[in-house]
Amino acid sequence: MHSCMDVRALTERIQQFVAARDWEQFHEPRNLLLALVCEVGEIADLFRYRTDAEIRAGIGEVATRAQVQRELADVAICLLRLADVLEVDVEAAVVEKLAENESKYPAERVRGSAMKYTEYERDKS
Amino acid sequence: MHSCMDVRALTERIQQFVAARDWEQFHEPRNLLLALVCEVGEIADLFRYRTDAEIRAGIGEVATRAQVQRELADVAICLLRLADVLEVDVEAAVVEKLAENESKYPAERVRGSAMKYTEYERDKS
Amino acid sequence: MHSCMDVRALTERIQQFVAARDWEQFHEPRNLLLALVCEVGEIADLFRYRTDAEIRAGIGEVATRAQVQRELADVAICLLRLADVLEVDVEAAVVEKLAENESKYPAERVRGSAMKYTEYERDKS
Amino acid sequence: MHSCMDVRALTERIQQFVAARDWEQFHEPRNLLLALVCEVGEIADLFRYRTDAEIRAGIGEVATRAQVQRELADVAICLLRLADVLEVDVEAAVVEKLAENESKYPAERVRGSAMKYTEYERDKS
Repeated sequence: MHSCMDVRALTERIQQFVAARDWEQFHEPRNLLLALVCEVGEIADLFRYRTDAEIRAGIGEVATRAQVQRELADVAICLLRLADVLEVDVEAAVVEKLAENESKYPAERVRGSAMKYTEYERDKS
Repeated sequence: MHSCMDVRALTERIQQFVAARDWEQFHEPRNLLLALVCEVGEIADLFRYRTDAEIRAGIGEVATRAQVQRELADVAICLLRLADVLEVDVEAAVVEKLAENESKYPAERVRGSAMKYTEYERDKS
Repeated sequence: MHSCMDVRALTERIQQFVAARDWEQFHEPRNLLLALVCEVGEIADLFRYRTDAEIRAGIGEVATRAQVQRELADVAICLLRLADVLEVDVEAAVVEKLAENESKYPAERVRGSAMKYTEYERDKS
Repeated sequence: MHSCMDVRALTERIQQFVAARDWEQFHEPRNLLLALVCEVGEIADLFRYRTDAEIRAGIGEVATRAQVQRELADVAICLLRLADVLEVDVEAAVVEKLAENESKYPAERVRGSAMKYTEYERDKS
């Protein structure tokens, strides 16, 4: 359905939403970051005092699923808007960061280990 | 350049990265949310004690720009991965949430005002 | 040992630290909140991809314990400073909030249940 | 009024609140951290799309002040509880961290500058 709406297209829809309301004036970087913090907190609220199994099971219930979807969408909207205001192409940034992570964490070296990069480096030396 | 890599394609690249390292076992919802919190904190670290003007100016400097891009990418990767694990289509969720926001905040009523939805509702009654 | 250094005394030590560096100018509410976000993110970094059992075991190791202590202290310092700048007496606020929570969550009704207040209210009606 | 209720005494009141509800079982480190993230998000919600001047002015209004106080209290409660579960004495940790910060950021060197420690070190060399 939404099969080829890319990150740029989503960003543009958000731009239109904001422009139609004359809200650019409120979208300074720190405000958008605080909005992002707030939305991440709302996901935390849905998860708190639940086990991972309960969270996964909740996704199977219509009402909980709808809530989780809405909060994930809010985080995505804040992130896309922040990136837009900072003139960062998130899609390109993700592609680049994945390439960087691929060389930082060679599959054959880190397979099955949750060791962080710094620990991994320390371990290597 | 990356003109038609949609959200789904990015999600699949992340899946491949994770699978190649046998890291699915660490990607429980709460772990991924904590990873997201951590990455949002790193953006906050880049912004802290800076004015919005300084943050925007920083984007013009090569080194700062690269850092901001990397942190935004990390947030995006955690978000896409969390959505994937929860079986949420972020792209569809964003489109739906924007439609919801459009009816919650009619442009002609909220233009130029940062009043939040709850305040706006209160104000209406 | 530190048996009677109350919250006020800690707040005053932080004030002195800040004043000696002429840093009050950077301590606007949003900056301090971003600093708090950043420090919470550093705790998340220490916890990520670890189970609760691993986190608790880590506390038994000298190096990990020192790190956790430092990050918890950073969160506390940011919180006390933010409260100070907003002229809120955190200690009184905590005492008041606990009293509020006591009447919101009567022990005999919520014992052993993680149900949130809103759910509890819904359930009651 | 609350003049000598120290951090330990607050922590014990929280312990009693939790024990009376048999909630220790939900207070694993990651759950408490997610609760902390959620409460920090609620402060962000009170601040978002407001300037620092508006935030400070809000503190002068009874309703806003009460909200800010409640959210700061919630953050403090989560932090004290997390520290308690991790067997960290927050008060001692804060005192120690302030001493560490004093030697990391000598007043005569950093006065009036928001430069971060890493930048300061880089600058020194």
